[in-house]
Amino acid sequence: MNVLATIAFKKGAVELIDQTLLPAEHRILKITKVEALCEAIKSLRIRGAPALGVAGAYGLLLAVEEKWRRFDAYYFDEDTAILDGFPSIVTMDAVRRHLDRTGEKLRATRPTAVNLGWAIDRMMKVWRGGWGSPADMLRALHGEARAIHTEDVEMCRAIGRHGAALLADGDSVVTHCNTGGLATSGYGTALGVVFAAVESGKKIHVYADETRPLLQGARLNAWECVERGIPVSVLCDGAAASLMGEKKIACAIVGADRIAANGDTANKIGTLALALAAKRFGVPFYVAAPSSTIDSAIRDGSAIPIEYRAEDEVKSFRGVVTTPQGAFAYNPAFDVTPHDLIAAFITEKGVIQPPFGS
Amino acid sequence: MNVLATIAFKKGAVELIDQTLLPAEHRILKITKVEALCEAIKSLRIRGAPALGVAGAYGLLLAVEEKWRRFDAYYFDEDTAILDGFPSIVTMDAVRRHLDRTGEKLRATRPTAVNLGWAIDRMMKVWRGGWGSPADMLRALHGEARAIHTEDVEMCRAIGRHGAALLADGDSVVTHCNTGGLATSGYGTALGVVFAAVESGKKIHVYADETRPLLQGARLNAWECVERGIPVSVLCDGAAASLMGEKKIACAIVGADRIAANGDTANKIGTLALALAAKRFGVPFYVAAPSSTIDSAIRDGSAIPIEYRAEDEVKSFRGVVTTPQGAFAYNPAFDVTPHDLIAAFITEKGVIQPPFGS
Repeated sequence: MNVLATIAFKKGAVELIDQTLLPAEHRILKITKVEALCEAIKSLRIRGAPALGVAGAYGLLLAVEEKWRRFDAYYFDEDTAILDGFPSIVTMDAVRRHLDRTGEKLRATRPTAVNLGWAIDRMMKVWRGGWGSPADMLRALHGEARAIHTEDVEMCRAIGRHGAALLADGDSVVTHCNTGGLATSGYGTALGVVFAAVESGKKIHVYADETRPLLQGARLNAWECVERGIPVSVLCDGAAASLMGEKKIACAIVGADRIAANGDTANKIGTLALALAAKRFGVPFYVAAPSSTIDSAIRDGSAIPIEYRAEDEVKSFRGVVTTPQGAFAYNPAFDVTPHDLIAAFITEKGVIQPPFGS
Repeated sequence: MNVLATIAFKKGAVELIDQTLLPAEHRILKITKVEALCEAIKSLRIRGAPALGVAGAYGLLLAVEEKWRRFDAYYFDEDTAILDGFPSIVTMDAVRRHLDRTGEKLRATRPTAVNLGWAIDRMMKVWRGGWGSPADMLRALHGEARAIHTEDVEMCRAIGRHGAALLADGDSVVTHCNTGGLATSGYGTALGVVFAAVESGKKIHVYADETRPLLQGARLNAWECVERGIPVSVLCDGAAASLMGEKKIACAIVGADRIAANGDTANKIGTLALALAAKRFGVPFYVAAPSSTIDSAIRDGSAIPIEYRAEDEVKSFRGVVTTPQGAFAYNPAFDVTPHDLIAAFITEKGVIQPPFGS
């Protein structure tokens, strides 16, 4: 089973699948400016907490490329990881200032997902380190970004392995939003658990919440399942409760954008309603996420910042206006599921329980 | 505040607002054939349990008009209620057989809403009665259909009056699906409660669940509120739980398609998830419906038949396909909310509690 190339850094550009066009069109964007990357993140051309971490790290490499690539001599070889001829007139301080500014710009694109800030913090530790020359520092930054990317794939594989043990042959699983290869750098968190179970020979039926307003479940989770030959039924977000009541669901598995120390979890709007239905009908409700999603500096969910998005996302769909003029719309991108509704957290370290220490 | 002409019977035709076109277009359909009325009911050009009762009654009048209107002499005057010149060669038995067949056809269009069958049963009692002539019987049928219509408006007014007492000035109310004038013969059940509260001088803010897949909340509830100058915010179905968690909601009021003797209530898919969220956050959850929605022959919700609708309703959005080929869709039109989640039932007889006797 191959890994989707959700995001890559190639020849000084960030390449990513434009997820707003799926499943109708599979288009690769080649992004050469930080402004364009910020736009792509804000308009969800790339989304999913783990994928945003990788995008943030690559965005910092892009910042240096964009500013100094006019010096032909600056060349980073992807295969050999050799960086040559960075212009000697550029000081270490100038590079650091530029990275500081870019880091803040990237961090502001999406306030809820912790992985974006987490990846930028990792990169910052590198550029604040003591280096002999800007070239040395940049080489280290390239290495760090690649490591964030590679570790993400490995973490997803580990999450899948740990989670797959929770699924039995023949199980039906409810998912919310997209948590597959597209949401990560290639394999997935909650959907990665399903992929791993299927790879180990179990038959799994996925019930994908369509996930309004932007339909990441209908468009992206369903697409990833179909691509892998896994049977998938899309359902309206309000319908999962009745499926659970009919005892048709073995468990629900969702991703996370930020997990507080006590286990309260921010995830795509609609997750809380799904968790409440699971509780009522005794269906285990799992959160699958890399441990980098845990923000132990935040004690509980009340302190997680929630992003509110444009009213038009609710009031129209792909250009078709559905709501009368004069009506408002309420459009938070995320909600917070209290920890008591969550049966367990599936991370790369294993299946764990809060509280999570710092 | 005027009453919407959701449905009318005029000059031998059923007239109704095509609700699938709202809010973009306000078109009145003039229906002269039972087949066309059945299509209009199945494709939700007219919907809402109380409105379906009126449509069923008028459909039976239409059946007689359609079959025998070629006899020019058959003429029913709406104003004087005088029916003249019904062809004497038509026997009482022929009319009864035709009504029996039509009744079964109409009844089969939507299996969950009890009001449709209830109205047909009321009409059946009339046509099975002992009449001197077909003309006498038809006159009585016209009278019964008009009574069903008039009583529906009166019942909605009474529901509104009883329910309005539960709302305080400044309250925010969550609604699901359309339960206003369009769902009834002109005033509304759950939304009628809001209208009555506003008429009595209270300020109310409506949060309308958009109600996927067919967006009756975004399209119709929002339209009715805007038309009446009531502030309304549309939200995705999964978002109400987080609003309730933020203590922004005074209560939820929904309609009903069928209520079992123990109070279990079938209503538009997504109602159950809303009721679970209300329970968690201590928000009173009310069902507003005419008492004809109570089916005391059904002991609990498990016996209520649930209509499953076409997969395309979920897989596309106003003609735009959103889901990849190869994916299935799960599309029940209704779910059943257990009675323990319902704070009270607002009916024309007052605010009541189950069990409901026969």
